[in-house]
This record gives sequence, C-alpha cells and structure tokens, in this order.
Amino acid sequence: MKFLANSVRRILFIYRPIYQSTRAFSFSNSNNNEQTRWNTCNKILISSVIAGCLGYYAFDKQRKYVFAEASKSSDESGTAGKFKEGLPSFSLREISDHTSKDTKVWVTYKEGVYDITDFVDKHPGGDQILIAAGSSVEPFWLLYGVHENKHVYMLLESYRIGNLSKEDVGTLSSDLDDPYSKDPVRHPVLKPTSAKPFNAEIPPPLLVESFITPNELFYVRNHLPVPDIDPNTYELEVELEGRNKRVTFTLDELKKLPKCTITAAIMCAGNRRGDMTKVKPVKGLNWGPGAVGNAVWTGVRLRDVLGKAGVDEDDARYKHVKFEGIDFDVTGNMYGASIPIWKALDKRGDVLLAYEMNGVPIPRDHGFPIRVVVPGVVGARNVKWLGKITVSEKESDSHWQQNDYKGFSPSTDWDTVDFTKSPAIQELPVISAICQPCNGDNVEVVDGHILVRGYAWSGGGQKIVRVDVTVDAGKTWHVAHFDGQDSSEPPQHWAWTLWSIRIPVEKHLESVEIWAKAVDSSYNTQPESFENIWNLRGVLGNAYHRVKVKFSQ
Amino acid sequence: MKFLANSVRRILFIYRPIYQSTRAFSFSNSNNNEQTRWNTCNKILISSVIAGCLGYYAFDKQRKYVFAEASKSSDESGTAGKFKEGLPSFSLREISDHTSKDTKVWVTYKEGVYDITDFVDKHPGGDQILIAAGSSVEPFWLLYGVHENKHVYMLLESYRIGNLSKEDVGTLSSDLDDPYSKDPVRHPVLKPTSAKPFNAEIPPPLLVESFITPNELFYVRNHLPVPDIDPNTYELEVELEGRNKRVTFTLDELKKLPKCTITAAIMCAGNRRGDMTKVKPVKGLNWGPGAVGNAVWTGVRLRDVLGKAGVDEDDARYKHVKFEGIDFDVTGNMYGASIPIWKALDKRGDVLLAYEMNGVPIPRDHGFPIRVVVPGVVGARNVKWLGKITVSEKESDSHWQQNDYKGFSPSTDWDTVDFTKSPAIQELPVISAICQPCNGDNVEVVDGHILVRGYAWSGGGQKIVRVDVTVDAGKTWHVAHFDGQDSSEPPQHWAWTLWSIRIPVEKHLESVEIWAKAVDSSYNTQPESFENIWNLRGVLGNAYHRVKVKFSQ
Repeated sequence: MKFLANSVRRILFIYRPIYQSTRAFSFSNSNNNEQTRWNTCNKILISSVIAGCLGYYAFDKQRKYVFAEASKSSDESGTAGKFKEGLPSFSLREISDHTSKDTKVWVTYKEGVYDITDFVDKHPGGDQILIAAGSSVEPFWLLYGVHENKHVYMLLESYRIGNLSKEDVGTLSSDLDDPYSKDPVRHPVLKPTSAKPFNAEIPPPLLVESFITPNELFYVRNHLPVPDIDPNTYELEVELEGRNKRVTFTLDELKKLPKCTITAAIMCAGNRRGDMTKVKPVKGLNWGPGAVGNAVWTGVRLRDVLGKAGVDEDDARYKHVKFEGIDFDVTGNMYGASIPIWKALDKRGDVLLAYEMNGVPIPRDHGFPIRVVVPGVVGARNVKWLGKITVSEKESDSHWQQNDYKGFSPSTDWDTVDFTKSPAIQELPVISAICQPCNGDNVEVVDGHILVRGYAWSGGGQKIVRVDVTVDAGKTWHVAHFDGQDSSEPPQHWAWTLWSIRIPVEKHLESVEIWAKAVDSSYNTQPESFENIWNLRGVLGNAYHRVKVKFSQ
Repeated sequence: MKFLANSVRRILFIYRPIYQSTRAFSFSNSNNNEQTRWNTCNKILISSVIAGCLGYYAFDKQRKYVFAEASKSSDESGTAGKFKEGLPSFSLREISDHTSKDTKVWVTYKEGVYDITDFVDKHPGGDQILIAAGSSVEPFWLLYGVHENKHVYMLLESYRIGNLSKEDVGTLSSDLDDPYSKDPVRHPVLKPTSAKPFNAEIPPPLLVESFITPNELFYVRNHLPVPDIDPNTYELEVELEGRNKRVTFTLDELKKLPKCTITAAIMCAGNRRGDMTKVKPVKGLNWGPGAVGNAVWTGVRLRDVLGKAGVDEDDARYKHVKFEGIDFDVTGNMYGASIPIWKALDKRGDVLLAYEMNGVPIPRDHGFPIRVVVPGVVGARNVKWLGKITVSEKESDSHWQQNDYKGFSPSTDWDTVDFTKSPAIQELPVISAICQPCNGDNVEVVDGHILVRGYAWSGGGQKIVRVDVTVDAGKTWHVAHFDGQDSSEPPQHWAWTLWSIRIPVEKHLESVEIWAKAVDSSYNTQPESFENIWNLRGVLGNAYHRVKVKFSQ
C-alpha cells in the first residue's frame, strides 16, 4: 500500500510541471489550443491515476511474475553448476592459474568447473568475459542478466571439465548480494527489454499522449546497477587534466549557481533497433520506438561549472569533457563517456548538470542527484549519477565511448570491424516513428480516414520542419499536423515534435502499410530502408517507420 | 591582352592557397591507395608539399616566394606564349572549331596558338588533353602543375602555328543594350546551364581533380547581370533597423580589420537537379552534380564588422542579418537574402565578408569586390557583390528568400504550394556524387576492378565520416577512401571531401549501376530515391547518386 500511495503522490506532482510546460508549447493549427492543452493534461492525469491505482496490483503481479521466471529459469538450467559424478575436482587455487589462452581459460559456476578457452572469441560481449577468468562467473552474471537463460546454461555445461573441490564450494558466492537488489521500484507499464541492468520503454501509443513524458514513464537505459547516493554527502569532482587541478562541488554548491531550464528529448542510439534486427540480427537490446522521452530539465550550466573550476574558454589545449558515473561494475569500472569541449562551453550548447526532471528531483533511475543533459546528443553521453568531470585533450577511453555507440557500413561485420575507424556518436540524425496505430493493429476507419500519430526529432538542435506520411508506398505523401512543438529555434531546438494526421484510405482495401518520414531544419531527411543502414551494433535506426494495419470498418 | 594577363596572374596566385590547403588534408586508408592518391592529386601536390616545407606561416615571406616562383616560371618559359611576328592571327571563334583530330586540335597559351593534333597520342596524361581543345590550356596546367617547366614550354612552342587575335582578348561584346554585355569572359570548359544570366558547371571528372577548385573552373550561379564595380569607390553600408543607424565601410577599411581565411565548399540548392527531373519535371536550371566548388576564402569576419557597426551580441531584438547584392534586375530590384543572426555572430559560424578567393581578389563572376561566405549554408545566402547589410527583426523579403530556395513535400504542386509554410533553406543536408565514371561511360576493368571517384559534403559544419559505394544494388557496400579531407572538426568543417575506391566487379557482367551515399558526423545519411524527395522547385537533390556504366574489358 505504501508503494501505491507514493505512486499516486508522484503522479500528482508530475501533473503540475506538465501543465506549466504545455503553456509554453506552440500548438500549430491552434484554433482550439486551450482545449487541446486541457485534453492533453487531462488524459495524462486520468491515465496516470488509473495507472497508479492499478499500480500496486500490477507491481505485485509483476514481482510474482519475475520471481516465477527466475525459478523457471532455474528449472530450465537443469543440472547447470551442480556436482557431477565422475569428473575430477579442482581447487580454487588451481583454477586461478587458468586465466589466458596460453594457460587455458577456466571459470566456475556454482560447483561446476569449465574450460571456456574455445568460447572466448565467440563471446558476444567480447573480451569482457576474461574478467571472470580463473574464478566464478556468478558476480558477472548477476550484473549482466542476459546470461540467465537456459541456452546459456546449456552452452556453459558443454564446456564442463570438472567439479569445484568441496572445501571451496560456497566461498566464492556465499557473500554475493544481487547488485541490483537496491534498484528502484519501477512503474509496471515500463516494458523491460532487459531486467538486469534494467532497461525499459512504454507502449508507443502512451508515448505520444503528452508532449512532456512523465518521469515514471520515461524510458530507462541503465548499463549497471543504480547507485544509491546520499545527497547530503554527494560531491562532484572536476579535474583539469595535466594541470594537477581538482575542484569539488557539493549538491548545495551546485544549486547556488545560476539555474537554467530547457525542454529536451533524450534518445537511445538503439531506439527502433527491433526494426533493424528484421533485416539481420544485431547485438543489443531489442528496443521498439520507445527508447526516447521528452522532459523539462533544470540545473546548472556545465559551462558555468567549468568556468568556476578554472577552464578558460580560449584555452585550445583541451578538446573533450569526460563524464564518469557513480555506477560501476564488479571490477570497479565506472560508466564513462565524453563530449567535444565546444559543445560543453558553447553558450548555445545548453549542456546542463540537471538536478530536476519535470519539476522534481531527478528520480534515481534517471540519475539522482545529478545527470548531465547534453541536448541534441545521443543518450549515452547524458551520463547519470555524475561523479566526476575531467577536462581533457582526449576522448573518454571507456568501453561505451570507444567500442560501442558507433556507426558502421552495412557490410562491416564482427570479423572486419575496427572501432577506431568510426567516430563516437554525438548528435543523432533525424528520426520519426508512428506510435498509433501499432503494427498489426485493427484500425477503425472514420469517415473514410484513419488517424495516425507519432513523434519526430533530430539531434544537434535541429527543428522538425515537416513530417510526410503515406499509405500508398509513396505515390501520395500527406503532410502531418504538429500537435506539440516547442517554439525554440535551431540550433537550440532540443525537444521532440508530436504529430498527427487523418489520412484518407480507399474503401476497397482491407489493410495498408503506413510509412512516415521527417525532415529537419537542415532539410536532412530519413533514409528509406533498414537494409542500407543496417550496422552490426544496431544503432542509428532512423529508416522510414513502416506499420501494417488492418481495417475494422 | 588584359584578359590573358589577368588570367595568368590569377592562375599563378592560385598556386599558393592550393599548397596551403593540401597541408591540412588528412589522407586516410593509405595502405592500398597509393596509386589512386597520386593519380588524383600528384600534380598539384608535388610542388605544394615541397613549398609547404618553407613555412607558409610567414605570409610576407610566402608572398615573396610565390612572386619568385612566378618570375622563375616566366624566365623558364622564355618566349612561350608571347606574341610572335610573322605568324597568322586566329580569333577565339576560329580556335573553338578545332577540337578533334578530324578538325585538328588547337589550343591557346597566353597569346600563342598551337596545333597539338600530332601530340595528342603522345600526351602522358592521355585523352585528358582534349578537355582544353579549342580553348586555353592555362586552367588545366594549374590542375596539373607538372606542366610548369621549361621542357613543356619548349615542346609547346614546337607546335606553334599563330597568335591569338588581339581584338578577341578584350571585352567580348560591344552591344551596350544587352544588360549582360559587361559580364566577364568565361573559360569555355564551363558548360552553361543558362547563358543570361550566366550559370555553368564543369564536367564532373574535372571537378574531383583538385581539392581546391580553381577560380576559372568554379561553378557560376548568377541570378542577374554581373555588376562592374570600381573598388576605389566601393562602399558597404550596414544598417541597424529601427535604430536609424547606418555605417559605411570602404574596401580599404574592411581590409584593415582582422583577416581570416577558411576553406569552404559552396553549393547551389539545385545541384543534381537533373536527376530529380527524371522523376517529374521541375522549374529550375538543369544542373548536373557540378553546382558545387571548394575554395579558400579570405576576408573579414562578419561578426567583427557588425561589432564595429554597433551590434550588441546580447541584444535579443535582432533575429536576422539581411544581405543585398549590387546586382539588380530591370525593375531595379537587388538580389537579396538573409541568415539567422546567431550564425552571423557565432564565433564558430565563420561567416566572412570575403575579398579573396584562392589567394586573389574575388573574380567578378564570384562577387568582386566582396562576397558573403556563409560556410555550411546554401549558396543562395552567400551573396555576391555585397552592397548592403541590414540587421533586422525579420528575414529578407526578397523573392529568393521567400518564394524560392525552400523545400516541399513530393505531393505539393504549384496549385497547392504555400511558400509561407516552409522555412528558407539555410544549412544543406548531406550529399555525395559520383564524378568518375559518368553515366553511360565505357569503363576499363583493371585487375577485376573499376575506379570510382567523387565528392561528398554536408552543411552546418558537419564532416563526412563515411562514403559507401555499391555496384550490386546494396547487397555489398564498399567503404571509399578519402583522398582529400580538411582536418577541421565539426561544427566547423566547411570543406568538401574527395573520395575514391576501386570496386571489384563480376567478370560475366557487361554493365553495372554504381550507387554512392555519404554519412556525416551527425550520422545523417542520404535518402535513397528521388521519388520520395521530389519537390516542385527541384532543390535539395541529395538522393543516392546512381550511375550506369558499361565495361570495356
């Protein structure tokens, strides 16, 4: 019940900033602005309250479901990691000698001992697997929940060479806590693409209900467990590399700097990856079109903080600003990323160290107490739980900057890829998505028309200037109406655009495929098909959105 | 005489910026591209690289060096190209009839006329020599610097047949009623898409011969007759609207402000319109892929001039900077355009009032004495023959800002178009073009490969990060090598990128269609087909470039 009460309270809080923000919108086609605004707000309030009331029930149900899934997995794993008669025993001491291809790579799982030397090159996560060499995989599997399925257990057992000596059983895992046990409670409407780390999006029709995405419904993209930070002891460290200079700021000190508010969408580079995987599988979370949200962010300008720390805008030696999260993996590696210094210092860059999201302290899942908001730039650089800023000559050397979140040619595969040859994604290209109807829906035809709604956005501060929609494979394109668009101008247009259109459909048809494409203020537009933009990491999935629907007449 | 003398002086001056710029190129993928690279750039680079070692940073020293080189060439050339007594005179008109072996191949060099028919087959550069047939070799000798030695001059003189008629080297027309009668003389290699006003591009293969486009070969886009401006009486007027404030600058006063040099491509919004018209006719000049050029521009920063005129960077009342050319139509309307004020004032905007193009005073066709260079922005806002700047709350109300140079949906036609609904084009989207081979060419297959070369560019200071080329309709994409790319980083990457690739082709095929697409630093890429980006003005033609070729094996 406590959860339910909190949920409703939070939702009511959200209502306030949403309405405030809607006052700032420019609703095109605005003959009934006020009505639209209230309609929008009411819809959010009503659906939120209903959702809230259902919340406790759903949460409880979900918890039971997750629990059931876990025991199901456990059943499916069968004998994985259990003692097996007839195999030799190895002590932890012996196992710890096997940490490389030369000495063979051994790992343990519960009571099982495995020689995974031949698997190392096939591991989807690359060399990361060697972190567990000579020891137990269990802490890492707790961190990367994707391993918890029967295929992985079966694969592991195929490398079984022995049993862990009885004296050593339990010493590695007895004090293991689930690193995700302190993750926050989430709203059940968030559909997880991965449970640990937690990654989730909401159903597309909900996404376009409101120009401002409520915090509880904002997509979550976590790479690691959510840190639990005490705001009273929180300190942000700023280092100027090569100058032996460090400055720290408490949360109160940050809040005393000039306050700044922007409305900005944040999008994951993997948004709409699900469409790309239809061409050919890729590595990554299977996102639909919901790995994006639009919020009002309040905080202090990064350029002000860097100025306080002694960064001179005209000092050409520094090229990048690195961010380090307080979230870390079992080896102690923090999440890291960087942006070019021009973006950090530019007065039109609007990079914030945000402490509020939609008018309330940033929720834990979104970076409490401080998240870097780099508007117009891929989500991966909008580092949450910010612990440290380093002004540097070089880019961040983190895995996420160097070996992830980069684009490649469709013909580049995992045998030929060279991550040093592609730049780290910063500004994202123009994109749009149809959020209503969804693929496969039965759609009502009203007066010979169907209603299509969606969002569009472009990185780099570009504004959406047009969304074209077709139901006849491009023979006729219809220009959509903008239902919600911030009035700010490029190159400082950071928010998304919500659009809708009623499209005439032929009576004799039983179904159509709807396509949408957006055009931004630099007149860049979307590529047509995923075939020609496919890439092995499944990022930058901005091809035309295509949705097949049937008619219920 | 005056024309030829100017021409030679210009060409010699051009030499300097070319080697400056080549110093900055980054030649990537160097392992297997040695031959291509040299084929592409060698003639220009040989002396440039040597000269580069002398240190271009000392401007005076460098100028002396260039002058010294010029007089050295002049000494070495001896009497090459000088008037010779006792030889017949030929007019440019007569010379232009001699362009093939059947009619004999004639060329001019300074005042000399040469019949080089017997030399064509001996020319180390092959058929390339025929580009100059019926006209002057001088612009091409700029591209191929290897010609500048006494052996070549002596060889040339051995083919001397006459002198260029003196009447022909001055102004072309004495018809004072023709408003275009004072237009400058152009090089015959410029293929006009329209004669009055003059608009012309060069053949695509020539376009990618040099990272810096020589002035004589730079595409010309004139909307009106070329004004004939006396630099001694020239004045630039700057007005701050609503403040009753006007300031004027003479050319000398402008030149006393801090000097700034950038390398930037300028492109017409109608570039590649010819491909779009294949879908459905449009209104506009029928440009091929040559309505673009890349030059070194020197001048004064617009922000400095506006600062001198009293514009306060933090004054929010002004939103636009309007430019008026001195060129006017029969009703007295000046050419006009505007840009957003943030671009004009931004220290990374690099907007110049340029007085030099590739190291010499800007030629008349390109805006003498002052052209606004708005890097990253469509050519139409790079106003030539600048007469007046107005800082304003509003956009330019000129025809070219309000009723031209805007993008529309493919289904918008002249009955439904509403020009107020689309923003004026500013930054251009990412584009590329295949310049060699051309559509319909017979292509030589060497070791199972064909050579493909082209350019790529993106507006808004974005850098090209990849060019993909396919000969099997996208089944396999090949990543092109960059032969020339400026090292400046986004958001200040203004120059184009030259690329090339040798692509394997199946032996049994007789022909293929080559497609190219570029990706820029915001990971925007080109749309696939003209069908879905067609617009009634035929602008923004950045769909994949597709070229069909046959094989000569």
